[in-house]
Amino acid sequence: MQELTTDHISQQFNNELEQLRQHFLTMGGVVENQVQDSIQALLDANGSLAEDVKDKDTTVNQLDGLIDEECTRILAKRQPAASDLRMILSISKAVSELERMGDEAKKIANLTLNLINEGESPRGYVEINRIGQMVSRMIHDALDAYARLDIDTAIKVAKQDRAVDQEYNTALRSLVTYMMEDPRSISRVINVIWVLRSLERIGDHARHTCQHLIFMVKGVDVRHVHVNDLAGEVKDA
Amino acid sequence: MQELTTDHISQQFNNELEQLRQHFLTMGGVVENQVQDSIQALLDANGSLAEDVKDKDTTVNQLDGLIDEECTRILAKRQPAASDLRMILSISKAVSELERMGDEAKKIANLTLNLINEGESPRGYVEINRIGQMVSRMIHDALDAYARLDIDTAIKVAKQDRAVDQEYNTALRSLVTYMMEDPRSISRVINVIWVLRSLERIGDHARHTCQHLIFMVKGVDVRHVHVNDLAGEVKDA
Repeated sequence: MQELTTDHISQQFNNELEQLRQHFLTMGGVVENQVQDSIQALLDANGSLAEDVKDKDTTVNQLDGLIDEECTRILAKRQPAASDLRMILSISKAVSELERMGDEAKKIANLTLNLINEGESPRGYVEINRIGQMVSRMIHDALDAYARLDIDTAIKVAKQDRAVDQEYNTALRSLVTYMMEDPRSISRVINVIWVLRSLERIGDHARHTCQHLIFMVKGVDVRHVHVNDLAGEVKDA
Repeated sequence: MQELTTDHISQQFNNELEQLRQHFLTMGGVVENQVQDSIQALLDANGSLAEDVKDKDTTVNQLDGLIDEECTRILAKRQPAASDLRMILSISKAVSELERMGDEAKKIANLTLNLINEGESPRGYVEINRIGQMVSRMIHDALDAYARLDIDTAIKVAKQDRAVDQEYNTALRSLVTYMMEDPRSISRVINVIWVLRSLERIGDHARHTCQHLIFMVKGVDVRHVHVNDLAGEVKDA
């Protein structure tokens, strides 16, 4: 009887952890769409799609609150240890990264509405498209890595952030040069620069999300480890 | 004997919580200095002070790792409930905010070195000084609020972030206008805009830090509550 009860409790606990993981992946899916739609809205000058992105902020915030409550409840009720504890702490941090990616998508949607009202920027859309695709892929792969507890993919995403930073810096230099050549474009080009900045930050958050996953699976804190040393750190763990 | 042992364990637990709190406040002090020094380095064109700010990043990252380990260890060993659990979760999140404020200070230090090398910007230092003072004050007050568990101060800091955002937007508009009038200044003024952006983000992190404190003391999640409704939410808790 004792054993049955223990099994029962342990089964409930597993269900709770599985539900937490599912909510996290659901929230990730919403944010992934938000980011993709914010870029599409900008490229197509589609104001109503930009409004959709802003509206989804409510859903993201609700999921953020829900997941945080679940984490607190499980910690208080189940007093998990070892890998279960790491899973909850890792999701609790990763969820903040998702929430901030959603915030950046909302900023891009607002900038899109500015650009629709004030007139499109003459430059920078190619770069937004390219960097946008890169960070969308990073979010997608980061969520995949969470779904499969796949460390190799997590490391790949973290490394990819370097490529995003390089593209971003190149784009920035070229836009500054363009503004100097055509000062009348400044206020529109500045909006494009803010979009690029938001995309670059989304890349940072995707990298952080993967670092939280590495902590969850391997128990090592790699937040301050250089990306080139990541594979070695994880192998030794 | 049983009682003595329980008292002993409980005393140890309290010591651990107190030490965690002290480490958090220590890290806060380092970050507060980093932010102040990064602004001073820029205003005085002081390259060696800017290098100091960058060097302190190592200390901040070490404290970040230490505090995170303490949180995990206490959760695993003590299995805290109710307000103790909230304190640990709150500090675990607030410490990430501090770490990111430190990152922004480091960015300001790097921009300062750019400005020293490429030539000072003709505009924007007055605004950096003003907004810099505002966010330095916010960090100081947020840490004070943590030290005294002072919710009124936490709400005040969260509200102050609105003022920072307004100053930031005004400064931005005026710098865009200036660049249009004097396109040769663009690449230098852009560096000033990045500094202002970093200061604005430091203000955001200070607000988030205070929201985590409100969760810790009151047990309500106010991250998605409008600042004007904060006092009401907290009063009802």
